[in-house]
Amino acid sequence: MPRDGTATKERILDAAEKLFETNGIAATSVDQIIEASGTSKGSFFHHFATKRALSQALVERYVEADLSMLQKGLDAVADVTDPVERVLGFLRYYEQWAVELVSADSACLYLAVLTEKDLLDDTTSGAVERAIVGWRVEFAALLRAALRARGLGRKVNADDLADHLFATFEGGYLLCRTFRSADPMRGQLRVFRQLVEGLIA
Amino acid sequence: MPRDGTATKERILDAAEKLFETNGIAATSVDQIIEASGTSKGSFFHHFATKRALSQALVERYVEADLSMLQKGLDAVADVTDPVERVLGFLRYYEQWAVELVSADSACLYLAVLTEKDLLDDTTSGAVERAIVGWRVEFAALLRAALRARGLGRKVNADDLADHLFATFEGGYLLCRTFRSADPMRGQLRVFRQLVEGLIA
Repeated sequence: MPRDGTATKERILDAAEKLFETNGIAATSVDQIIEASGTSKGSFFHHFATKRALSQALVERYVEADLSMLQKGLDAVADVTDPVERVLGFLRYYEQWAVELVSADSACLYLAVLTEKDLLDDTTSGAVERAIVGWRVEFAALLRAALRARGLGRKVNADDLADHLFATFEGGYLLCRTFRSADPMRGQLRVFRQLVEGLIA
Repeated sequence: MPRDGTATKERILDAAEKLFETNGIAATSVDQIIEASGTSKGSFFHHFATKRALSQALVERYVEADLSMLQKGLDAVADVTDPVERVLGFLRYYEQWAVELVSADSACLYLAVLTEKDLLDDTTSGAVERAIVGWRVEFAALLRAALRARGLGRKVNADDLADHLFATFEGGYLLCRTFRSADPMRGQLRVFRQLVEGLIA
């Protein structure tokens, strides 16, 4: 175990993430985070001056993980030359991921942030915007090549279609949360891939 | 103006809806709702015994409006006999609606309810489930006929595809909220209709 406090800091962030996703940010108190992380007030405030500072650090960590998930999908299809196959392989990568990683009680931190956006500072909500735009730029580039190859470059807006993957993820999380099941995420990612297939394959 | 308190009750519900959608339910106090609705403590508690009672009434009202929006889309295509055209007409109805009705600061009450689900009672979160299942059942019936007509009845899960409209709406709301613009809702509903068109038309 590292003695520099890294483990404690991560434990606090993990506990806060779960509480924020389950109850929202405003409804979660510092005391609840301290209790759930099994740490102390002194230790908490050593790492984070305020709940706002914790929220910023947490959203930053979440966005970094999200963008590295994007990079993994891009890496998975980096060697695929056919533009249509590249799009479908990219989507299949996340379909596979949903089967492996999403659990029944998983939720997305972005939902809490966007629901309470007006209570949060620009740094926190701006990080979510950065993530959405990051996915849009990369996925739209893949889509543009495939749409052009099918003569649909002018008909379908590649940016909107790219953002539709965000809608699919968030809709999947909301359905999982509603029905307390991991199945909807799998179902939503599969149906989105099938829809894209219907359009470009 | 009716003197029976109906107008006051609706004004309280309207103010609460806006506050809940903007800041979340837990973060909104009864005092804030009273101030935003320009009413009094006495008047508030005449209509609602607790914030919980108000939340239940509000979510019920929202679900009723949502299900009547579903009914309008069904009515709009009731006379269309071709199953593929019926599905596309149904989706075009909401595309048109987005152009007319969604504003830059509109949000969905379901996002607040599902984000804070574990803080709420089963009556409140159950109402959202009822709405999602209501849309699923009706839209899936339209989809099943169209998928069968195209020989896709076994390949594509009609329930998941029906739920994808929920994902599209919620994703649209989240994108509108992120970018403070009404355009994403239009874009997401259009792209979903184009995707369905690609699959079944």
